[in-house]
Amino acid sequence: MSQQYQCRIYVTLRPSVLDPAGTAIQSGLLQLGYEGVEQVRIGKYIELTLTAPHELDAKQQLEQMCDQLLANPVIENYRFELTPLALLA
Amino acid sequence: MSQQYQCRIYVTLRPSVLDPAGTAIQSGLLQLGYEGVEQVRIGKYIELTLTAPHELDAKQQLEQMCDQLLANPVIENYRFELTPLALLA
Repeated sequence: MSQQYQCRIYVTLRPSVLDPAGTAIQSGLLQLGYEGVEQVRIGKYIELTLTAPHELDAKQQLEQMCDQLLANPVIENYRFELTPLALLA
Repeated sequence: MSQQYQCRIYVTLRPSVLDPAGTAIQSGLLQLGYEGVEQVRIGKYIELTLTAPHELDAKQQLEQMCDQLLANPVIENYRFELTPLALLA
């Protein structure tokens, strides 16, 4: 029996790493008149559906996916959320 | 008196729009042996700090920013969360 999970993964640059895209967006927002905007940082947001025997296994798989492919651990942090979906036979 | 808000913005492709980057990541994960992965979709995640007189104003500013610059409303959806930070004099 397997369980399906809806997974949301957030990949962000480590605070010590410069974010030129964030800086560009911040200056764009300032030019548009949004003067209260500061500290813009851009990251990736990944949604996927994962089938796994149980939640612990799903979390371990997600951690490995992030370390191997989805994030660059040298310059990026990640976190994720799981929501159980349908139970599969 | 102004309030500072920590804002998290999630920009995703509309479900009807093809996501070639998501498909590429999905096939990469399958090749790495993660066979339970489906429906991979890639989006943007933006963090920023916003100073505004009150929460309603902050939300309106965020909606306008998303419509004008952060998202492409033709092919993308967005949602955001606000957390109040320090109260500024």
